Amino acid sequence: MTVSGAVQAFAMPGRGSRAATLVGRRRGGIRRAAAARARPGVGAVVQPVNRIPTYALLDPAAEEAIHQASMRILEEIGVDFRGDSEALALWRAAGAEVAGERVRIPRELAMAQLALAPARFTQHARDPVRSVEIGGSNLVLAPVYGPPYVRALDGARRRGTLEDLENFIKLACRLPALNHSGGIVCEPQDVPVPKRHLEIFRAHVRYSDMPFMGAVNAPDRAMDCVEMARIVFGGVDAGGADTGGTDTAGTDAGGSGAGGADAGRIETGERTVLISLVNGNSPLVWDATMLGAMKVYARHRQALLVSPFIMQGANTPVTTAGALAQLNAEAVAGMAFAQLVRPGTPVVYGNTLATVSMQSGAPTYGTAETVILGLAITQLARRYGVPSRTGGMRTGSKTCDADAGAQSMIAMLSAMLGRVHFVLHAAGFLESGLSASFAKMVMDADQLAHLLGIAKGLDVDDDTLALGAIRDVGPSGHFFGHGHTIEHYDSAFYRPMTAETGTWDQWVEEGRRDVEARAAAVAASLIDSFEPPPLDESVAEGLDEFVARRSRELPDEAF
Amino acid sequence: MTVSGAVQAFAMPGRGSRAATLVGRRRGGIRRAAAARARPGVGAVVQPVNRIPTYALLDPAAEEAIHQASMRILEEIGVDFRGDSEALALWRAAGAEVAGERVRIPRELAMAQLALAPARFTQHARDPVRSVEIGGSNLVLAPVYGPPYVRALDGARRRGTLEDLENFIKLACRLPALNHSGGIVCEPQDVPVPKRHLEIFRAHVRYSDMPFMGAVNAPDRAMDCVEMARIVFGGVDAGGADTGGTDTAGTDAGGSGAGGADAGRIETGERTVLISLVNGNSPLVWDATMLGAMKVYARHRQALLVSPFIMQGANTPVTTAGALAQLNAEAVAGMAFAQLVRPGTPVVYGNTLATVSMQSGAPTYGTAETVILGLAITQLARRYGVPSRTGGMRTGSKTCDADAGAQSMIAMLSAMLGRVHFVLHAAGFLESGLSASFAKMVMDADQLAHLLGIAKGLDVDDDTLALGAIRDVGPSGHFFGHGHTIEHYDSAFYRPMTAETGTWDQWVEEGRRDVEARAAAVAASLIDSFEPPPLDESVAEGLDEFVARRSRELPDEAF
Repeated sequence: MTVSGAVQAFAMPGRGSRAATLVGRRRGGIRRAAAARARPGVGAVVQPVNRIPTYALLDPAAEEAIHQASMRILEEIGVDFRGDSEALALWRAAGAEVAGERVRIPRELAMAQLALAPARFTQHARDPVRSVEIGGSNLVLAPVYGPPYVRALDGARRRGTLEDLENFIKLACRLPALNHSGGIVCEPQDVPVPKRHLEIFRAHVRYSDMPFMGAVNAPDRAMDCVEMARIVFGGVDAGGADTGGTDTAGTDAGGSGAGGADAGRIETGERTVLISLVNGNSPLVWDATMLGAMKVYARHRQALLVSPFIMQGANTPVTTAGALAQLNAEAVAGMAFAQLVRPGTPVVYGNTLATVSMQSGAPTYGTAETVILGLAITQLARRYGVPSRTGGMRTGSKTCDADAGAQSMIAMLSAMLGRVHFVLHAAGFLESGLSASFAKMVMDADQLAHLLGIAKGLDVDDDTLALGAIRDVGPSGHFFGHGHTIEHYDSAFYRPMTAETGTWDQWVEEGRRDVEARAAAVAASLIDSFEPPPLDESVAEGLDEFVARRSRELPDEAF
Repeated sequence: MTVSGAVQAFAMPGRGSRAATLVGRRRGGIRRAAAARARPGVGAVVQPVNRIPTYALLDPAAEEAIHQASMRILEEIGVDFRGDSEALALWRAAGAEVAGERVRIPRELAMAQLALAPARFTQHARDPVRSVEIGGSNLVLAPVYGPPYVRALDGARRRGTLEDLENFIKLACRLPALNHSGGIVCEPQDVPVPKRHLEIFRAHVRYSDMPFMGAVNAPDRAMDCVEMARIVFGGVDAGGADTGGTDTAGTDAGGSGAGGADAGRIETGERTVLISLVNGNSPLVWDATMLGAMKVYARHRQALLVSPFIMQGANTPVTTAGALAQLNAEAVAGMAFAQLVRPGTPVVYGNTLATVSMQSGAPTYGTAETVILGLAITQLARRYGVPSRTGGMRTGSKTCDADAGAQSMIAMLSAMLGRVHFVLHAAGFLESGLSASFAKMVMDADQLAHLLGIAKGLDVDDDTLALGAIRDVGPSGHFFGHGHTIEHYDSAFYRPMTAETGTWDQWVEEGRRDVEARAAAVAASLIDSFEPPPLDESVAEGLDEFVARRSRELPDEAF
């Protein structure tokens, strides 16, 4: 039988109706299950675990060569820590060679600091069933971060608003594949810059029960996020040490225990409730803004995605080994700095990866180099004993075309096989991150669900081997009606929200809708029927009061 | 710097023009290189080699359990060999238990037969630089196979014609990522069924110098293909033994040596010049048509893609382990049968994989189950010492949307990491294989090029580590103008044929063309400017005479 023959056979009315009967019988149960899964604040949520073998791209010699090159970069070339005399003082006190703003870091110092970081930690959500483990075999999948534009449900491209941001948060909360609410899912450009962090924080609390991110664009704004976290989560703040010494001052009023499975390495009674993205300014610079935010969060035991920002060929060598050696040096320097501020600060070895077009200078995604870098990063993070961030459903495409799908998938599948822990931009990323797309968020969630199915691996036992069913059905028989099929019907195969499996004629009749159009309809329906997860009234009021007060205090223009 | 900040920065005129200068200086060289690569019949062609580690999804216990289950299926349930008394006689003589058409195969017999198959072999092309190794670390990438419909360059969907087929062959010949011309790239529906194989064969010889496939839809048509191969390649035929005994009768008049690196296992002087797709009729049936074609090709030392046709949940158990155990039994039975016909027949452990929608019964692609099956198949093929076929840029999508991109990529990347050897449907597959798309063939070739970049792995040496460049550029510098970048400029980053890296405004101005539209334009241009590779005139005439004669002899209708 050829492919087309089989397709035609399976599209025959007889086949279709046999399946339809089975569907009809079971539809009620499926609908109920989907409703429960998609409803925030309902029931237990199991964090996805990567149960399949880890793919290590680099052989040990290559890994070692990259590490050695990075150590030489740290020792011989050094990294600039700019506009932050305290950062320089911390490095000097720790034994680095500081000349101007250039910090040359002996490898022993870098490695000793990195060893203080936890191998895994918990980011607590306000609903404990939504807390996530970051590290080990656990996966955290968060939406796109930072786009100034949105692709609205009607497909138009326009500046993001607070309402858009809220809708993205609601949508993410209803997508079972996502277990993190992210941060600036789009820039709410109708809110003055100095106040945006307040509205963004409140939106995540109001419209999601999943963990989320803090602001990094000014130390005061980071501090506002810590204050708001105190209101929402109780005492997350231990005061914090100003030096690199071990800090034991903090006690946690509202916390539910140690911050992670690696509790021995984190002081008791403090909870990590925020994770924040600090981008390196490649090549080899950590700037004052990011250092300021790092210090605030590190002192309050809040987690950091320490992410060199790589445009390979522009701000790194054009060769992949060089780009990797440089970004690894930058990441190690950043993560080590967080430990200098406060030992045990939960950090994730992050990165933002693109190659650049040598024709236009524009960032490009889905390239061999970004996949190799992403896989290498997961491997180096394991070497250093810290969780990794890479992957994401990222694309340079301006529209949800096949490039968008392919580029998103190549990055995400490779990262998952490399055992990534935290994935930013896991859904909704379009146009090199300039746009957040509602439709793509739904499409990406469908693809993530397939990937999470792979992560479960192959379940082999007498039941799944199904020798009885194979014997019963026999040569040229059909399995649709067999009891084994019916038994496994509910759990068999992920059913995409955007599925379209009709015949060609049906598809034409229904308006030739591509997956983007179908996904936009799903997004609209999920947002429309959204009900916010339960939120303690006193928390809501406390947060509103804080936002109102700070909004009065803060200017409308950033200076 | 945020993603959007960086993107905007790199889209600034200053950045753009800096890159543009570099491009301007070097554009001539690049154009020349692209022209040489895309030109058939010119220069040496290097077959892509998978240099990266192999991803093995199954742990040894799971692999063993699947193997054991498959052996029990062969021994206890058996496989039907239908409508072919010779096949049954071969099995009976070899020691299988034959009851009616049911053949129960002792595992020792199955494994002993399989051990006769070569671990790798050469498929010779008429231009020796285009010959491919099948097995080892080598990759063979062939176009879509079998679609009755085409998506024309204007996007219309219509029945395939001989002209379409010829255009697909021309296009494939010009795409550097493809190294195999395939077979029925689309069904030439304007040619009567009984004569199609003649025109398809001739089109591959006329318009490509790459290796290609033979017909399987009737033993006589397979024999016609062998006859035509004699004309094109010289004596490929060794006569062949009718029994399972070792065959040493053949000598090869025109052959250039042993058929592959594993020459010890292939008799001297015979060349494999065709590979043909034989599909199992799952569950557990090999039918008369396929058995007939297998016998013809095996007797002439021509290669076979032995491919169970899996619609998981319909013609296999719905559970993946069961589907795998069944398809593995089917593949082993088919490959063992080819060895019974003639020991040493080059076979590839194949498959055609889809899950079925439990809602509509339609085949679905890009699912977790198909990825797991594909990876498991590469692993089982290694266990049995035969090359594997899986993966492919396959999609159920009716249009080149993001689903098409994601589904294609998830299958192809996973297969490549699993070290697949032969990939059918590597380009142009759309709509569950009902349509062959010119645009998608180009888009897929671009994605394959990225994948082949990954397959090269990370090149680590002093030059690629680029410590000198990193030192020169220093913190916050820029690499565009550095000598190291310029030195690597020509080899850095694959440049997609369909690339679009302008600003949003440029993209809107240029008509908002998605990748499908851009790819269609590339396809049109490559087809228009196609020049056929050199072909010996006497060969062309001999082939024309054969086709003319057989066309007169054969009926216009199949009965």
